[in-house]
Amino acid sequence: MIKRYEDSEIAMIWSDENKLNLWQKTELAVIKARVKLGYVSQEIFNKISKILLKTPIDLDWWKKRDNEIHHDLQAFIDERLRFLSIDLQRFLHERMTSYDTEEPAFSQMLKKSLSRVHDFFSELMQDIAKLALHYRYTIMNARTHGQEAELQSFGKRCLTWYRELQVDLDNLKRAEKNLCFSKLSGAVGNYGGIDPELEKEALKILGFKPFYGATQIIPRAVFAPIAQALAQIVSTLNKIAIDVRLGARSGRAICQEPFAKKQKGSSKMPHKKNTISTEQTEGMARMANKFFQMIMDNIPTWEERSIEQSCVERVAWPDLFHVVVRSIKVMTKILTGLRVYPDVMIQEIIESRGCYAAGEAKEVLRELGVEFGLTSEEAYRIIQLAAFNVFRSTKMAQEIRESPPTSLIEADSWFEKFKNTSPPPVDSIQEIIIEARIETSEDLEATDYDVQRWNSVLSKIFQNQENLLRWNQIFLPSYLLRNETRLFQEVLGAK
Amino acid sequence: MIKRYEDSEIAMIWSDENKLNLWQKTELAVIKARVKLGYVSQEIFNKISKILLKTPIDLDWWKKRDNEIHHDLQAFIDERLRFLSIDLQRFLHERMTSYDTEEPAFSQMLKKSLSRVHDFFSELMQDIAKLALHYRYTIMNARTHGQEAELQSFGKRCLTWYRELQVDLDNLKRAEKNLCFSKLSGAVGNYGGIDPELEKEALKILGFKPFYGATQIIPRAVFAPIAQALAQIVSTLNKIAIDVRLGARSGRAICQEPFAKKQKGSSKMPHKKNTISTEQTEGMARMANKFFQMIMDNIPTWEERSIEQSCVERVAWPDLFHVVVRSIKVMTKILTGLRVYPDVMIQEIIESRGCYAAGEAKEVLRELGVEFGLTSEEAYRIIQLAAFNVFRSTKMAQEIRESPPTSLIEADSWFEKFKNTSPPPVDSIQEIIIEARIETSEDLEATDYDVQRWNSVLSKIFQNQENLLRWNQIFLPSYLLRNETRLFQEVLGAK
Amino acid sequence: MIKRYEDSEIAMIWSDENKLNLWQKTELAVIKARVKLGYVSQEIFNKISKILLKTPIDLDWWKKRDNEIHHDLQAFIDERLRFLSIDLQRFLHERMTSYDTEEPAFSQMLKKSLSRVHDFFSELMQDIAKLALHYRYTIMNARTHGQEAELQSFGKRCLTWYRELQVDLDNLKRAEKNLCFSKLSGAVGNYGGIDPELEKEALKILGFKPFYGATQIIPRAVFAPIAQALAQIVSTLNKIAIDVRLGARSGRAICQEPFAKKQKGSSKMPHKKNTISTEQTEGMARMANKFFQMIMDNIPTWEERSIEQSCVERVAWPDLFHVVVRSIKVMTKILTGLRVYPDVMIQEIIESRGCYAAGEAKEVLRELGVEFGLTSEEAYRIIQLAAFNVFRSTKMAQEIRESPPTSLIEADSWFEKFKNTSPPPVDSIQEIIIEARIETSEDLEATDYDVQRWNSVLSKIFQNQENLLRWNQIFLPSYLLRNETRLFQEVLGAK
Amino acid sequence: MIKRYEDSEIAMIWSDENKLNLWQKTELAVIKARVKLGYVSQEIFNKISKILLKTPIDLDWWKKRDNEIHHDLQAFIDERLRFLSIDLQRFLHERMTSYDTEEPAFSQMLKKSLSRVHDFFSELMQDIAKLALHYRYTIMNARTHGQEAELQSFGKRCLTWYRELQVDLDNLKRAEKNLCFSKLSGAVGNYGGIDPELEKEALKILGFKPFYGATQIIPRAVFAPIAQALAQIVSTLNKIAIDVRLGARSGRAICQEPFAKKQKGSSKMPHKKNTISTEQTEGMARMANKFFQMIMDNIPTWEERSIEQSCVERVAWPDLFHVVVRSIKVMTKILTGLRVYPDVMIQEIIESRGCYAAGEAKEVLRELGVEFGLTSEEAYRIIQLAAFNVFRSTKMAQEIRESPPTSLIEADSWFEKFKNTSPPPVDSIQEIIIEARIETSEDLEATDYDVQRWNSVLSKIFQNQENLLRWNQIFLPSYLLRNETRLFQEVLGAK
Repeated sequence: MIKRYEDSEIAMIWSDENKLNLWQKTELAVIKARVKLGYVSQEIFNKISKILLKTPIDLDWWKKRDNEIHHDLQAFIDERLRFLSIDLQRFLHERMTSYDTEEPAFSQMLKKSLSRVHDFFSELMQDIAKLALHYRYTIMNARTHGQEAELQSFGKRCLTWYRELQVDLDNLKRAEKNLCFSKLSGAVGNYGGIDPELEKEALKILGFKPFYGATQIIPRAVFAPIAQALAQIVSTLNKIAIDVRLGARSGRAICQEPFAKKQKGSSKMPHKKNTISTEQTEGMARMANKFFQMIMDNIPTWEERSIEQSCVERVAWPDLFHVVVRSIKVMTKILTGLRVYPDVMIQEIIESRGCYAAGEAKEVLRELGVEFGLTSEEAYRIIQLAAFNVFRSTKMAQEIRESPPTSLIEADSWFEKFKNTSPPPVDSIQEIIIEARIETSEDLEATDYDVQRWNSVLSKIFQNQENLLRWNQIFLPSYLLRNETRLFQEVLGAK
Repeated sequence: MIKRYEDSEIAMIWSDENKLNLWQKTELAVIKARVKLGYVSQEIFNKISKILLKTPIDLDWWKKRDNEIHHDLQAFIDERLRFLSIDLQRFLHERMTSYDTEEPAFSQMLKKSLSRVHDFFSELMQDIAKLALHYRYTIMNARTHGQEAELQSFGKRCLTWYRELQVDLDNLKRAEKNLCFSKLSGAVGNYGGIDPELEKEALKILGFKPFYGATQIIPRAVFAPIAQALAQIVSTLNKIAIDVRLGARSGRAICQEPFAKKQKGSSKMPHKKNTISTEQTEGMARMANKFFQMIMDNIPTWEERSIEQSCVERVAWPDLFHVVVRSIKVMTKILTGLRVYPDVMIQEIIESRGCYAAGEAKEVLRELGVEFGLTSEEAYRIIQLAAFNVFRSTKMAQEIRESPPTSLIEADSWFEKFKNTSPPPVDSIQEIIIEARIETSEDLEATDYDVQRWNSVLSKIFQNQENLLRWNQIFLPSYLLRNETRLFQEVLGAK
Repeated sequence: MIKRYEDSEIAMIWSDENKLNLWQKTELAVIKARVKLGYVSQEIFNKISKILLKTPIDLDWWKKRDNEIHHDLQAFIDERLRFLSIDLQRFLHERMTSYDTEEPAFSQMLKKSLSRVHDFFSELMQDIAKLALHYRYTIMNARTHGQEAELQSFGKRCLTWYRELQVDLDNLKRAEKNLCFSKLSGAVGNYGGIDPELEKEALKILGFKPFYGATQIIPRAVFAPIAQALAQIVSTLNKIAIDVRLGARSGRAICQEPFAKKQKGSSKMPHKKNTISTEQTEGMARMANKFFQMIMDNIPTWEERSIEQSCVERVAWPDLFHVVVRSIKVMTKILTGLRVYPDVMIQEIIESRGCYAAGEAKEVLRELGVEFGLTSEEAYRIIQLAAFNVFRSTKMAQEIRESPPTSLIEADSWFEKFKNTSPPPVDSIQEIIIEARIETSEDLEATDYDVQRWNSVLSKIFQNQENLLRWNQIFLPSYLLRNETRLFQEVLGAK
Repeated sequence: MIKRYEDSEIAMIWSDENKLNLWQKTELAVIKARVKLGYVSQEIFNKISKILLKTPIDLDWWKKRDNEIHHDLQAFIDERLRFLSIDLQRFLHERMTSYDTEEPAFSQMLKKSLSRVHDFFSELMQDIAKLALHYRYTIMNARTHGQEAELQSFGKRCLTWYRELQVDLDNLKRAEKNLCFSKLSGAVGNYGGIDPELEKEALKILGFKPFYGATQIIPRAVFAPIAQALAQIVSTLNKIAIDVRLGARSGRAICQEPFAKKQKGSSKMPHKKNTISTEQTEGMARMANKFFQMIMDNIPTWEERSIEQSCVERVAWPDLFHVVVRSIKVMTKILTGLRVYPDVMIQEIIESRGCYAAGEAKEVLRELGVEFGLTSEEAYRIIQLAAFNVFRSTKMAQEIRESPPTSLIEADSWFEKFKNTSPPPVDSIQEIIIEARIETSEDLEATDYDVQRWNSVLSKIFQNQENLLRWNQIFLPSYLLRNETRLFQEVLGAK
């Protein structure tokens, strides 16, 4: 991974230096296990262990050797053998194949990297929980298909992010379970070298249980779901990022990612606050997904193994972890510094002209209308029409829609004209329905006759004071959000 | 492909019936070529041809036979042989391998499908060109990072769609070039059956040139770029769809996909006009891309061929074509029925408070400021500050931002409060800069001293009437869009 | 999915008919739950339920209506409403949004499909277990990198397939856990329609628990791991298929997929038994993986939902299931009919000239050599050299390698020459080492001096009768496979 | 990319240092173009150019600044401005947006990297052409479905590799064509900054033509096909690698990738020559394909641009180039050092027992049989049966197939038994057919009656001396390969 996006700890974990030290750890664990089983004396282990641990591995020597023999594990053994007397040499890598040494090391690198992911992840989860609670009563228009739908709190939106990440976390935890396994069962997995008891003992020292049924390697099917789970996290982060980006659209931003005081939005346009971190998250998701797919492609291999997975794993695993860790860190920064504008959210609700309660309104009308012979379909059509009515355009607007400017000069003059005209007052479906003043619309099929009838029914319904009270109540945020309490209880254990 | 998304013509092209007829076409072409080279008499060809063409292939017989012998091409030959006398039998499929018969058929199916794509595609291109010209002077805020950037016309945005599709079309046309090749060179591609001259002659009849260097099949590397080009088209359509979706966000929709009179946006929320066609385009792009990747995966094969590509091609090619054709048709419908709201676009520009010209303003300030010792950096900072100033929030807004509601009742009362308060008048960077009234901002690092100095410089600059005129001019749409003419000339040949 | 590859049961599950019936099931469950909570009378439920269940849904009417209003769920409601009197109408789909109805239906379709996968899967697992036990003592050369490595039984190879599939199965089972959840929480997931208690009750009837924290839909992060798990199964099947294909290479096939008596391998080459089923499995894996990726791409969505996932799910889920079910069925057929040739396996071991025990031989030499000053490196080099020695080519072979034929006539005469020459007798590293007759080789760096010294050491070692006995023992299959017992115990519980 | 797989030149091209120098190149080109159009004096250009070119960019300063303002291009401008006096400052980056500077730089990096790919690629092509010609008459069994099919030369196999790479190369060259375009058309692509004439002039200096119809950036649709073409090359290299791996399977290797004298195949098994380079090529193909897909995902963007493509391009493009260059270099090494064993190839043909000519044999029989009433179907069945006959297993083999060993001891004894038994002499379809001694087979449906009749027909046919001569001729390599000449002519222009 390029420096710009790398996490230093992940880089350390996947460094040659760390890998070789982990290889040595396997080698020593095997000798120690032999001691335990009585194959080798404690003294020999002590000697070897002392020498190897105090003599740092010479990475340059190792690399040179690797270039010569084209076998990195064997080059490592050769490097270590330099420091052992002939009588000790035979105990190193005794009866082992390369992947006996490498598999436990590889799994340890995965575990360490995952632990780092979990650290950042739980921080993020806490931050989102806080955000959700902070904005638990901050009302906004929920949006489906980009359209203003029903009312919700911004806290509830955060809570859906939280919950989806929880799904991802569970998924990751489940996938990780198989990391308790490793193998030392030899070149083809049938204990041609090390025997089953020795494997068990040595793996125990390293913190693993034997994977019975390996070939030369653990099947990559064990690891692919972990990569999927990691990529999935970034996909969800991207979902959150998209929500933030959509909320930050200028003209009416309801939230914005943090913007440093010295930050420059654009080299050309000084007024801009670009959503660069959230957009980057989308790029990161693209990468995470493809790094995962490289790893998924590693499942099929030939017979007792072939090595095409090796180069992929050298690149894709660390890069996947870099991308995941960075994406989580960036999202934490975005969300902890998130600027939220409840005022704009309210303004947006106001300008939605009562439609934020349209669903509820339809249900109420359906109920109240029954005694006046209104069908379900008609209740639906009345609300739809009312919504179209309140958003009817002005005459000037209609004019320019029909004949858009045909020259730049004309464009200038339209611009002036609009600048000098105030927008008409905001009407609302709340009012026009109780006042029974819905009208036909070009955009919907409804005859004059229908509309007249509907208005007459509406008049009747809302002569009844109780109906009127009920009607007005459903436009209250407190009414519409009354059930969110349960969500906060269930998801965050909030009272 | 499921019926809902299939194109009937594509379905016909990839039907068994059509495929078998194309196989027969290859078989007959080879016999005809033999006639031409003098290997077989014209009479024999006539006999065979007459029998086969007048006897429709019995698909049921063929399928049953295929189930028995697990070889669809051989089953087809068996079906046809039923109608030939023993003396004629040996001329059918003589010295040919299955893929000699199948490859030309396959390429013909590709060609036919591509021709359908081209038909719909050119219609779409014409429609976009029309749209671009119709809205050539309809001004709007261009957006980068979702933020209002500089001014452009909506026609120019259409033109960028047009141009990107043109790139895709060129890409497709280039990729198609290799479809001029096919092969009849036998089971391993070295003319063990048919000889090179016969291949040449027979392919000529079928409209192809020989691909020298095939194995049993034409390398799938020939076809993968075609699939890429098709998937790329849907990616671009998705880009257009995203632009339409973003433009259709309720609250301030500048455009909307067409909405049928009887259409229902939501079963729950009658007021909604959901962007379902544009959103579907994104789903289609996901599919197109993956169908392409299935085809791309088909490149490597074992030695002189193995057959893993076959099942993939049976599914992925027709499905890719269905998706592409449907996506183009849907986009044509969206764009020909697109509702465009120039009034809202202008309103949006107005409410961007002069920032639409911020880039230009910075340049002008940079120039005019030189004589007063203003650095480039300072010019940038002044405009940035002015932009922050004009978008400064009201006190009420600041209050709720700092302390969002802590109960639903509180939410209700804030809602009421905002409903009863009119928004403050719109200020603009155009004015506050010439009037030298920029102020410090919490969000940017700028000392009181800086701001004071900057205001003083601004005063001096705009005492000069010429500077003032120049300043005001850059806020005119006609000025800002002056260079678009060239684009329309270059891309659409418009005057 | 095209007919050729579809599973009829999967097709039924994902049919419109079944889907609409499941929608109705949700609708009825909600009314029933209302009865339970006292909102609606039992009588009303009975009336509605009776009418709807006895009146089959008119698919044609529904499709026509959908084409008109572009909303399939609403069209379904409209279809059903036709049969309800106005007073009953309001109880249908009351306060619900489309995805309240659809989500539980969707999850039921997934569950049913998965159950079919499990049925076929467990059959396959049993068959592989049988195969493993049947060939538990059938010895063969294991292969790594396509090269003959150590000895194993063919049963053990089957066991590694079994174990990898077990990993896949665990993965699937874990991923499925989330299918216990569904939602009825309304258009934006905050119970704007149905309240939490009603949701709980209704979902209970349908066999689900509420997913707290949904938007309009359950986050697709819940489903993506299931698709991954399904695709992973096909990847492992492909691994098995590859092993079978590699084993079936003609010239020395150790196993073959079944071949029907009437089957034709090739229309051109009658002698062939093509590995078409195993090769198809690779194609299926390509498709499965991409269908999964379509589903994985569905994770990010806009705000409280947008609908791009819908078309993808209509296509990718059933197609993924078709591919998975077919692949499992085909693999079951391959493995239950697998032809295994233990004689060829043994012949192959014999012709590996003792190298099958080379790893063990190196270890023994390492040990025995210590007292004669042989380093670990030298033990390695001796075995390597011995291996190169026994595979030394004949003079005739060397000749043609150096000067390959330069004309077809020359090719003919070489062909004749080889036809009339018997291959030299097979030597073995087992013998040449105890007989101390290793020689230098062009392909390895080893001086005459080294080789002389090594031979002299070898002589000394094998003068010792005990060493000799030990040496010969390691070339016995029973010795080399002694630890496989443990694997069969651990994986299959075999004694 | 990790050091192990990186190409130093590619690393240099994509280094920050090079990128910033290319940015400066764009900046200077624009000023120079202004000079040309008379907007700026030559003197000013000279001053700026002299200062900037002689003052190396301070990468540390730049990075620090970038961290502060989160805008790498602006940080670069700031770094450069440090060296310019206030009067010169305004000419730098005048009226430009970041991507005006970056796009031409980016395209230059692509062009340079591609040029490196082409260098290595043409070397590889030459080497394959040489290989093809060297082994033009080296006969081998072609293989389809892993099965021995018809005869071909090894040179012809190389030639199919060559031809597929040629397809890839053409594809790449076509995709590159669009690299002639770049843009300087401002923040939203409508010349808000630089005007069209200036763009044209400046791009000309940099070696580009204007891309009319850009947004802030060139649509990524321009670049995706290049990435596809690169990934496709690695896919084809993987196809070649697979062929080499399959050819190298021990037991009967017909070719091997080079193996260094000091190389170690395995730490456990000293005898092995592992196919690590070819296997790595498969891993590289997996990566190349996914890096391409990251780039393909970059096509859709929001409106006049959003920046999610940026991080992907920083990573995926250089990594894709590293992978491509390395894969080509590795393949060149494999193929120039390839060990080819014509002797083994011939041995394999001999042991295919005449089946290498089965296709031709069937055709001849079909022809000769007509006068004896043999149908096409019967000719097919006779050859198929003959093939099954010559590969009939021995009794001992049948025995062990029916009852595989049931203990390790039994396995030992079977092993001994086979060791002490010589294989039966090799029969051939060439002989048994002319000698009319085909027999029934368990594996094929053919009655005794059929077989008797067929033998009788065969006797009659081959009483005719002419028929016999014709028959024997078709088993000659020179006959079977007679048409390959044409391929070498067409593909390599060889005589």
